[in-house]
Amino acid sequence: MSDHRLTKIVKSLPASIPFVAPEEHERIVGKKFSARLGANENCYGPSPKVLEAIKNLSVDIWKYPDPTAHDLKKVLANFYNIPDNNIVIGEGIDALLGYLVRLFVQVGDNVVTSNGSYPTFNYHVEGFGGQLFKCDYLDDKEDLQSLIDTAAKTNAKLVYISNPNNPMGTWTRGEQIVSLLDKLPNDSLLVLDEAYAEFAPDEAKVPIFLDDPRMIRFRTFSKAYGVAGARIGYGIGNEELIAEFDKIRNHFGNSLLSQVAAIAAIKDQRYLSEIVKKISFGREEIYQIAQSNGLSAIPSATNFVAIDCGKDGKFANQIMSGLLEAKLFVRKPVVAPLDRTIRVTVGRDEEIDLLKNVLPNVLKALR
Amino acid sequence: MSDHRLTKIVKSLPASIPFVAPEEHERIVGKKFSARLGANENCYGPSPKVLEAIKNLSVDIWKYPDPTAHDLKKVLANFYNIPDNNIVIGEGIDALLGYLVRLFVQVGDNVVTSNGSYPTFNYHVEGFGGQLFKCDYLDDKEDLQSLIDTAAKTNAKLVYISNPNNPMGTWTRGEQIVSLLDKLPNDSLLVLDEAYAEFAPDEAKVPIFLDDPRMIRFRTFSKAYGVAGARIGYGIGNEELIAEFDKIRNHFGNSLLSQVAAIAAIKDQRYLSEIVKKISFGREEIYQIAQSNGLSAIPSATNFVAIDCGKDGKFANQIMSGLLEAKLFVRKPVVAPLDRTIRVTVGRDEEIDLLKNVLPNVLKALR
Repeated sequence: MSDHRLTKIVKSLPASIPFVAPEEHERIVGKKFSARLGANENCYGPSPKVLEAIKNLSVDIWKYPDPTAHDLKKVLANFYNIPDNNIVIGEGIDALLGYLVRLFVQVGDNVVTSNGSYPTFNYHVEGFGGQLFKCDYLDDKEDLQSLIDTAAKTNAKLVYISNPNNPMGTWTRGEQIVSLLDKLPNDSLLVLDEAYAEFAPDEAKVPIFLDDPRMIRFRTFSKAYGVAGARIGYGIGNEELIAEFDKIRNHFGNSLLSQVAAIAAIKDQRYLSEIVKKISFGREEIYQIAQSNGLSAIPSATNFVAIDCGKDGKFANQIMSGLLEAKLFVRKPVVAPLDRTIRVTVGRDEEIDLLKNVLPNVLKALR
Repeated sequence: MSDHRLTKIVKSLPASIPFVAPEEHERIVGKKFSARLGANENCYGPSPKVLEAIKNLSVDIWKYPDPTAHDLKKVLANFYNIPDNNIVIGEGIDALLGYLVRLFVQVGDNVVTSNGSYPTFNYHVEGFGGQLFKCDYLDDKEDLQSLIDTAAKTNAKLVYISNPNNPMGTWTRGEQIVSLLDKLPNDSLLVLDEAYAEFAPDEAKVPIFLDDPRMIRFRTFSKAYGVAGARIGYGIGNEELIAEFDKIRNHFGNSLLSQVAAIAAIKDQRYLSEIVKKISFGREEIYQIAQSNGLSAIPSATNFVAIDCGKDGKFANQIMSGLLEAKLFVRKPVVAPLDRTIRVTVGRDEEIDLLKNVLPNVLKALR
């Protein structure tokens, strides 16, 4: 029986959590993974300059971090050539999505997303009592027409898309996303999750419209920049919209060393280019592995590849279980038809080699 | 004009933020502080073992942190000799207070606190549309009788107290706080903020009642443990109550190196004892400085001292301004009668020497 003192919303929420971490998997089964290919982390890690900055500035850890993240915002503003008032820093995109939902969604408000896209966004929407409308994917991409139609029909407060897409790795051309803006209902905000933007081809780029209040975009240091452990992401949007976050966010939430890490990361664009190149080679390898096992790979603009296992969700699930059993940590979509795939992060050579060795056996055991 | 798409609560919130950081002060006036005595940080920093752990584990920063903070909870559970299901980890007490308010406070719900106590708690209550009832301090302490009377009268959801008290540094005997529990209305939760607990005398200790759903307590690594920059705090309470946080918290909010820092910090209790001793000497020095300037110091169980300037808030404000002008960062309460004091953190020798040298001049200029 739930505590009578809790709010109505909280009483209605499930105890479930968005993701089970690989560490938790390991504790449950009592053995360590040999390959960590499930969370789309950057296995190459951050620039050595990031580690150096952390080492040099860790003596400052007794101080509270700057709650305005002034220096990090300056570096980002300079990088994007935009004013820093258009940027908000948060404890990962996860936290920023939570703040955004809190700003816009009252109990019963409608929110549109895709069936199988980012669960943590849904977690926040449900956490604030919002009503989710989930559009089906079309050709392994978010179906823009369906999203905008549903937004109009429901007068949605928020419309979520990711580009490149998680969990499929696909991408949408930038101008297609831009064209959505004019079709948005007057009460809607387009939420563009660009966690994987640094890996994407130019055609996926969406220009920054600083004065446009109809869209907010989120990016992160957790993927290409290689500091998922630092939990730091940022939003770019209209100045008035960005200012709203200050009314509700945890002002001292961004740790000092996380800010330090992010600053050093963004400054080393040469390292980033190398990473993007390496990841691109890694994707090709995973494509090859899929192909040589009679499976197909969905072309990806991210640091992971969704391998199409060619049958239903149950079959893909069995493959994932086989890989987990062989100490390979991978994840997979749970909603049909995405659930016919398993999602494999570009890992280190030895991790990819393990996949190459193990996958044929897993498939053989199933056939 | 505010964005029509925002929630009713957000539209009603002020743009103000809980604290202006010293870095922001410095940017505004265009000069650096010589002494950082305003944020009650631990100027001695953390145990060297904390810095070593950060150095050793920073290469793991490409990984997402464990969202369950399993290892940190184990260390804390072991330290307190309680099950880890009674512990929740958060991005500082600030974040945990925010989550707690979200769990309990619906629009229009009543919350009781003291007039002049922690502004960030109030920020969260207002942020979720709660109605604050503020009791006056009595003899520079939170007035327990008044708090409990007001809780009964308003059927308050939350009743906030800090022990030791911020901003006055005073403390309340543990049994007095325990005695509150039986007087709490049925709908109330007692929120015990123990950010400064490690500095407090034994008589201030409140036993841990694991099965009691009427109280939750919060502690932090930001004060005695010297890692304010890591933004990590924890709550201890009834298992069912603690489990509620998992329904709404940012599961991946606690950065990897912050968890590492906290684990290393709690393990070095010998260092903590030394710090507590040093801080206690430092307090005495500040008492002396107050006295030799004709002011009085309020006995403190924390790492700061509220110096009673002997007149009204305006006078204390002038002293604070004089200190800021002399590049000494201090803060002060803003609500009468607490506002007659300035709040000075125990700092390094050279910082305290600066206070000793500067304060007479500031006072002379005012007399």
